[in-house]
Amino acid sequence: MGGDHAPDIVLNGANIARERFPQLDFLLFGPEPRIEQALRRLPKLAKVATIHHTDEIVAADAKPSQALRAGRKSSMRLAIDAVAEGKAAAMVSAGNTGALMAMAKLALGTLPGIDRPAIASVIPTQRSECVMLDLGANISCDVANLVQFAAMGDVFARTVLGRAEPTIGLLNIGAEEIKGREELRQAVAVLRQTPLAKQVHGFVEGTDIAAGTVDVVVTDGFTGNVALKTAEGTAQLMAFYLRQAIRHSTLAKLGYLLVRPALRKFRSRIDPRRYNGAIFLGLNGIAVKSHGGTDALGFANAIGVAVDMSVHGFLDKIRDELALLYPRPDAAEAALG
Amino acid sequence: MGGDHAPDIVLNGANIARERFPQLDFLLFGPEPRIEQALRRLPKLAKVATIHHTDEIVAADAKPSQALRAGRKSSMRLAIDAVAEGKAAAMVSAGNTGALMAMAKLALGTLPGIDRPAIASVIPTQRSECVMLDLGANISCDVANLVQFAAMGDVFARTVLGRAEPTIGLLNIGAEEIKGREELRQAVAVLRQTPLAKQVHGFVEGTDIAAGTVDVVVTDGFTGNVALKTAEGTAQLMAFYLRQAIRHSTLAKLGYLLVRPALRKFRSRIDPRRYNGAIFLGLNGIAVKSHGGTDALGFANAIGVAVDMSVHGFLDKIRDELALLYPRPDAAEAALG
Repeated sequence: MGGDHAPDIVLNGANIARERFPQLDFLLFGPEPRIEQALRRLPKLAKVATIHHTDEIVAADAKPSQALRAGRKSSMRLAIDAVAEGKAAAMVSAGNTGALMAMAKLALGTLPGIDRPAIASVIPTQRSECVMLDLGANISCDVANLVQFAAMGDVFARTVLGRAEPTIGLLNIGAEEIKGREELRQAVAVLRQTPLAKQVHGFVEGTDIAAGTVDVVVTDGFTGNVALKTAEGTAQLMAFYLRQAIRHSTLAKLGYLLVRPALRKFRSRIDPRRYNGAIFLGLNGIAVKSHGGTDALGFANAIGVAVDMSVHGFLDKIRDELALLYPRPDAAEAALG
Repeated sequence: MGGDHAPDIVLNGANIARERFPQLDFLLFGPEPRIEQALRRLPKLAKVATIHHTDEIVAADAKPSQALRAGRKSSMRLAIDAVAEGKAAAMVSAGNTGALMAMAKLALGTLPGIDRPAIASVIPTQRSECVMLDLGANISCDVANLVQFAAMGDVFARTVLGRAEPTIGLLNIGAEEIKGREELRQAVAVLRQTPLAKQVHGFVEGTDIAAGTVDVVVTDGFTGNVALKTAEGTAQLMAFYLRQAIRHSTLAKLGYLLVRPALRKFRSRIDPRRYNGAIFLGLNGIAVKSHGGTDALGFANAIGVAVDMSVHGFLDKIRDELALLYPRPDAAEAALG
């Protein structure tokens, strides 16, 4: 029931995902009459879906603490509980991010070795794609958080992006005069003591994100959120300039008819729906957040991310990686001071 | 002597600026033989230029502390001294940012009421342009710094961008669950107690920068630097996608001939040279930093920013604004705790 046009875009998205992943069964949480009515248009989805009735929903502007207290029977919470209870392999929601994170943290718990979960997303680059985290779960991060984000990003890049040996960069400012933040310097030093050492590229700057300099961009949630949204805004600005340039010339309008297919391809590459799906990494279960304003295609892509993570055993791989990173608990403590 | 292709691009840039601003006289600092030789190709510039000989230069990788100690006779330092001594109205350099900031701070001093200078730049938006600061001078900022940046950005937007009542936003992350950083909340509260109150928009997110939601974007130097460079990287990615889309289609190549003028216009709008010139705000003198890798046109634009600031009495306006903001020193102290 989350997002701007629920439950329709959610159900239409599930229907697209059903075509792509015929092995899936869907658990739908929300008011049964509304969902049933919508499913009448989607008979194939209805066949592989079970409705779990609830009238309660988490409001888009509810505070996480509020949602935790009052939302125990909400569609969001019941979906998370289904993952916690092993009834679902993953959950996807387009609802309130803060509430989703708070509930998922409480109901699923964090993985052993992870102090704080992070929000990650796939970002398009000139080379292909990278994963960036944290994108807003933690307003500030210490050395241990950053090291753990690097490990989780590494597993994500292997699992979802298919990289054999993902390179890892920590987002910093590169000007010589300021060597950047102390915790970033320390995190690089710690990572160089771990089995990830040869994958550690070191610091990267803002330009390196889209350049594709590394496969994993590690940052705190404040900086990551600002960087992600600045990139979105810049992409919109560029598309706006391009439209203006073409509209204001008759010749260009004519030529436009010929370049249109190429521009469509261009548009599809910068389509935010392609990269829809922010993943909560570090939880003991798979939870993916779709953008609240996305459409059915975007929601289907968010489901696709959840499927990739589940099919490729993301959680087990994170557990293995953390065991590798911290072979003994005291080694981790020593490394992290 | 700063930048990747000094002194040629600097002199060619000065020559372009000379055409735009015929009232200017130029003071050129560097090795006289090399400059004289280059000026032979630029007789009109030579007529309005004086060479101030020095063989010393600040290396691109010199640390600020090094440059301060060893660079007292460097071309960079002598140019700053000329501003400090009232011999020049402003200085422009494409050299080492950290060294320039450190030297300018020492030789010019900060304006009364300003604790720390900031680096500002003009950023293109869907509505027109905005000014963003700090872009890297201060890795972290307290409430007083942010309030002072807002005041300086306000004067810059009036003086250089020609806005009558610039709107001011503080860059934050907007998710409801995290209200953002405490110092940002406090800075907004303090600004609402000042004569700038009605111009204060409140928080903005990364997407708002390029959307043009406000005329002045205030942030700390770490976040600002990452945001600026992420925007640059995204713009490069979009241009790359566009080239790819057009190249991979024969029809599109044909149509490209027709849309080319429009695309050229597009390219000129996203041309980083248009927005070349990072300004050190808060110093008791005008110092503009050109990108080290820019060409003559970019350097001329950096000179243009310095001219605008000088002609429109930027420093006096900052002094007036700060007097308005802090009518009595104790009021400022009370407001800023």
